[in-house]
Amino acid sequence: MADRFLERIRRAAGQAGEAGLDGLLATPGPDLRYLTGHAPPPLERLTLLVLHPDRDPVMLVPALERPAAVAAPGTSSVELAAWSDGEDPYAVAAGLLHPGRYAIADQTWASHVLGLVEAVPGCTFVPRGRHLPLLRARKDDDEIQLLSRAAAGADASFRAVKTHTFAGRREEEIAEDLAELLRAHGHQSVDFTIVASGPNAASPHHTAGERIMKLGDAVVLDFGGFASDYGSDITRTVVIGEPPEGFEEVYGVVRRAQQAAFEAVRPGAHPEEIDRAARAMIEDAGYGEHFIHRTGHGIGLETHEEPYIVAGNATPLEPGMTFSIEPGIYLAGRFGVRIEDIVAVTDGGAVRLNEATRELQVVR
Amino acid sequence: MADRFLERIRRAAGQAGEAGLDGLLATPGPDLRYLTGHAPPPLERLTLLVLHPDRDPVMLVPALERPAAVAAPGTSSVELAAWSDGEDPYAVAAGLLHPGRYAIADQTWASHVLGLVEAVPGCTFVPRGRHLPLLRARKDDDEIQLLSRAAAGADASFRAVKTHTFAGRREEEIAEDLAELLRAHGHQSVDFTIVASGPNAASPHHTAGERIMKLGDAVVLDFGGFASDYGSDITRTVVIGEPPEGFEEVYGVVRRAQQAAFEAVRPGAHPEEIDRAARAMIEDAGYGEHFIHRTGHGIGLETHEEPYIVAGNATPLEPGMTFSIEPGIYLAGRFGVRIEDIVAVTDGGAVRLNEATRELQVVR
Repeated sequence: MADRFLERIRRAAGQAGEAGLDGLLATPGPDLRYLTGHAPPPLERLTLLVLHPDRDPVMLVPALERPAAVAAPGTSSVELAAWSDGEDPYAVAAGLLHPGRYAIADQTWASHVLGLVEAVPGCTFVPRGRHLPLLRARKDDDEIQLLSRAAAGADASFRAVKTHTFAGRREEEIAEDLAELLRAHGHQSVDFTIVASGPNAASPHHTAGERIMKLGDAVVLDFGGFASDYGSDITRTVVIGEPPEGFEEVYGVVRRAQQAAFEAVRPGAHPEEIDRAARAMIEDAGYGEHFIHRTGHGIGLETHEEPYIVAGNATPLEPGMTFSIEPGIYLAGRFGVRIEDIVAVTDGGAVRLNEATRELQVVR
Repeated sequence: MADRFLERIRRAAGQAGEAGLDGLLATPGPDLRYLTGHAPPPLERLTLLVLHPDRDPVMLVPALERPAAVAAPGTSSVELAAWSDGEDPYAVAAGLLHPGRYAIADQTWASHVLGLVEAVPGCTFVPRGRHLPLLRARKDDDEIQLLSRAAAGADASFRAVKTHTFAGRREEEIAEDLAELLRAHGHQSVDFTIVASGPNAASPHHTAGERIMKLGDAVVLDFGGFASDYGSDITRTVVIGEPPEGFEEVYGVVRRAQQAAFEAVRPGAHPEEIDRAARAMIEDAGYGEHFIHRTGHGIGLETHEEPYIVAGNATPLEPGMTFSIEPGIYLAGRFGVRIEDIVAVTDGGAVRLNEATRELQVVR
């Protein structure tokens, strides 16, 4: 286990060097977890992993978190430095940095990055996501296994929830059912449970509210969480009884768009081509202006991470990358449809990690 | 309700001007919630509230989050601007900023603040916490009421848990009990449940592990969460049966230090004086080197916020400020003691929001 973290640290430091960076900085969050297994909550006290291409790794921690840092699975080859309450942690950090350009974890708090900017005038900082976007993008086999297991838990939750009663209940109630189901199916935490019914489904980020669902509603269910630290994220759109007018045609378009994007996935393909494949299908059917978001996002230790499946992303896909494919059509005042699976790039193309049916499901 | 948010926005913009800043920026997190009631999760898509002392407020949101932004309780007087997937949100944000110096919310992601740094070369950014530390520090009466209610839920959870069986059970089991109790006592979410027994308690940030507790252990219980969006945070140290050797003396020192700090609180006092009051008591008893953290932290929409009760903080306390007082003594290999209450500054001194007994409690 310690070996794998050391391998990741070495690879990350090497990639930073290749990208023309002088170093890589990680703070509490997914990058630090990936590199060291150390997972304190992100807080106002500075914790900073410092990687240089040509030096040994060192991590600055608050003195009172030192025992937790020592106990983390991937810190045995990392030198630990500590600072105490009352000291200026940025001044201490300055002693660990060399003049130059560092990539820093995207989710680092502004207070920390601006503290470093001020304390270390010889350094510049750039966001890790933009400059080393693929640090965590290419998953190990066991990471894909964990993502598959999370996806299977989400699939099972969908299979279960579609036997529940929808008509006459509030969206929030189905959202609570979904949260319970995710936990019952191996999730350690629930990240989101979107239940968007009837006209609410025309807003892709509606969460779940007090609206009482009724016969004839289409309902978008988009939910996920974390199992063994890896994320799940699935969307299915169901109808309560008879679908509203025009729904089946739109459902068919979204389903074909999702399939077209899936079939466009292969090593070397560009994310923007995957986005285009889905978008072209929807545009050809005359709904282009109603597909108002990107086609997908990477998933791993975070629900949203690289690679983003969006216009303008021309970084070639590689085997082991995992992301969502989730086209949608949103008709204001009427209904919305979205279908989403997590997929993994393989040598020959892609596999879906979600296996719940994409046939239109009728609920009661 | 909308009025209160507008009042907060105006006050914040005015304070920014008084502090010599050209504006104030908030992103998803406690500052944005405080100023607008808009509470999207912090994500890779930029949401940015822009306040200028002499201009009307404007908020940039991702197009697909516009409906949620419109629906937030405090955005009716905020002009909304939207950007769509595929656009560069930082370029759009640049159009809303004027050359000058902006304070930005501490928890803003580095990717966003560095994106702004690059896109808006005429602007500099400084952390809001350092430059406008007291933005949310002085609570309204109803905020103190919500904090009291959260504290009462934490008190009730302590009263309940001390009737549970400790000996023979794992720390994690009591941690789960505490999480359930907090939820049962009005908490919408559980933030942390530290159960540190025997020698584990000598690490102030030990969380809860597999250690099986036994007769003669001292156990530090430090737990809290959120009720109606406001935080709770309480620590009590209990003993299972007979206390270990030397424990009662140390417990008495910590209790007197906590009381001394409490009595030092009054409008105009400096946080560092509160810290000193607790620390002097512990130093005089010969345990100075074993009190290895600050005395406290503010609490409100965040568990840790200004004012920090720490050496070096000389910003005078004001009525309405709320914070923890939590001195501790940690004896490596033996035991730890910490006692923590949340207090509110009043015109005449302070009141404790936690009312659970500080007498040493013996559990089974």
